[in-house]
Amino acid sequence: MELSHRGPEYREVHEQALERVRSLLDVPRSHEVLFLQGGATGMFGLLPLNLLSTTTSADYVNTGIWSTKAYEAARQVGPVRVAGTGEVNGQFIRVPTAAELSIDPQAAYVHLTSNNTAVGTQFHEVPACGEVPLVVDMSSDIMSKPLDISRFGIIYAGAQKNLGPSGVVIVIVKHDILERCSQKLPDIFRLAAHARANSLLHTPPTFAVYLTRNVLDWLKDQGGVSAMEMRNRKKARRLYETIDASGGFYYSAVEKTSRSVMNIVFRLSSTKLEPVFIERAAQAGLIGLKGHRAVGGIRASIYNVISVEGVERLAQFMNEFMRIYG
Amino acid sequence: MELSHRGPEYREVHEQALERVRSLLDVPRSHEVLFLQGGATGMFGLLPLNLLSTTTSADYVNTGIWSTKAYEAARQVGPVRVAGTGEVNGQFIRVPTAAELSIDPQAAYVHLTSNNTAVGTQFHEVPACGEVPLVVDMSSDIMSKPLDISRFGIIYAGAQKNLGPSGVVIVIVKHDILERCSQKLPDIFRLAAHARANSLLHTPPTFAVYLTRNVLDWLKDQGGVSAMEMRNRKKARRLYETIDASGGFYYSAVEKTSRSVMNIVFRLSSTKLEPVFIERAAQAGLIGLKGHRAVGGIRASIYNVISVEGVERLAQFMNEFMRIYG
Repeated sequence: MELSHRGPEYREVHEQALERVRSLLDVPRSHEVLFLQGGATGMFGLLPLNLLSTTTSADYVNTGIWSTKAYEAARQVGPVRVAGTGEVNGQFIRVPTAAELSIDPQAAYVHLTSNNTAVGTQFHEVPACGEVPLVVDMSSDIMSKPLDISRFGIIYAGAQKNLGPSGVVIVIVKHDILERCSQKLPDIFRLAAHARANSLLHTPPTFAVYLTRNVLDWLKDQGGVSAMEMRNRKKARRLYETIDASGGFYYSAVEKTSRSVMNIVFRLSSTKLEPVFIERAAQAGLIGLKGHRAVGGIRASIYNVISVEGVERLAQFMNEFMRIYG
Repeated sequence: MELSHRGPEYREVHEQALERVRSLLDVPRSHEVLFLQGGATGMFGLLPLNLLSTTTSADYVNTGIWSTKAYEAARQVGPVRVAGTGEVNGQFIRVPTAAELSIDPQAAYVHLTSNNTAVGTQFHEVPACGEVPLVVDMSSDIMSKPLDISRFGIIYAGAQKNLGPSGVVIVIVKHDILERCSQKLPDIFRLAAHARANSLLHTPPTFAVYLTRNVLDWLKDQGGVSAMEMRNRKKARRLYETIDASGGFYYSAVEKTSRSVMNIVFRLSSTKLEPVFIERAAQAGLIGLKGHRAVGGIRASIYNVISVEGVERLAQFMNEFMRIYG
């Protein structure tokens, strides 16, 4: 932490972290990898500052709390449109299909949130957006599966779910988008300036990058993102099957094709039992199961680091809890 | 690092870190303390985005590399003026006196860099700026001495010199300045929005804040900023006296009244001996003495954490080196 970011020790960590992102996600030469300070919320602001102007607008797909925040940030800068929604009767219980999106062919970009942590929905396909660059907030499912990077204009992800500590955001951006970045911003807020400086435009959050490099090494040792995908699917399947086999004792409001592999959000038919479930689970060492405060219920966030065994223990606990209280 | 920033464990750390800044610097109720992501370079950009407009300009005092960067960032956003300089014949060897500054009474703010790390100059008095808010980058001398906070509009400091790891910047800002912040920015870039959210607008760099809290605790145990000032002056005096007593073997280009207490920048009259000095010093366990790449020579950065004993070892090494090579 005390080493200079210009010294050889940090340089090596920095280059390795960038290279690991490239190799794990098979990033083509058409795209740049950046490490910036901040997280997704910072990117909500940088996107419109870099890419919106008085003559361009952007399309936003609204599938929950975080995509709403991204939309609101852009609205403070320039014109934005809603190109699709996951809302049904006031609740975000699905993601729209590609066919349901209405994309303005003149839009500066289309923005969507690939995985919605609070409501437990996830895009399982990359929608076709024609010539309009697709910008995706993957903060909660980056590195959880392989991706065809060539289909994206910008992918970004705050580190603190699948990658490392808070304080750093990974950005994968296509070169032709960098060329469109506004010139009227201080360099520190221009994606193109960070790309030109190889993410060393200013002092990077060195310790956060170091830990992210270590997590990426671990990911590689685990077999990379393909192995992660198999493991994550297996984990999610175990929990959804437990929910679906409970005869309604547990239920998920999310449409089956939109169910998230990262955040298993469910309710108990008896809502009075939900705090009991959370308390008993904590006593059994299963912590952090309370649903997002805007949604309630139960949420099992099973990011990359959560083991198959950990999920198995939760499934067994769910069955045991149902046996006693059902 | 894995704890939620909304949980009670982090909340306590967060509140303590903010409170320690308040108590150590005796921050009055007129000023807010913020922890933001990034560092000084981020603030170079946020300042003009928040406070410049088509009808206002800002004044910048130019005393070296970092103040030039701050000026350049503002120039990308709106009109800026140079209100004073520390340049003499193309070299930054002093800071201007208060009388030498020419401040536009209509300026949105006056910006200066209190300590210039590369050239080794420092403001030892706070210039009077009338009604114009004084904005100071104190990245390299925050917490090195007591301050009369009421005289400042904004003080900011990247953590990585005197406070903690890179990735967090402390901002002390007067309430009436918050009210002037632009409304046309995403909240993440509005100082007022961070103040309203008690620096929890988004996920803070939790580990960096935690370590900063620990450094502030250490500072308190050491006797606070008054004790630091005495210690820092003693350290600097020991090195400047060694330079001044060397009969020109060592010399400092900096005007005596502008000499920095944090960064002792000096040369050897025989520049050929400078790499030898750096090498022999490293062999004696005295590392990091190479001058900034834009300036050359020798630089002893003696931030808060450097002990009196460490400085004494350097002074003795300097005398010994002169005895052999002089």
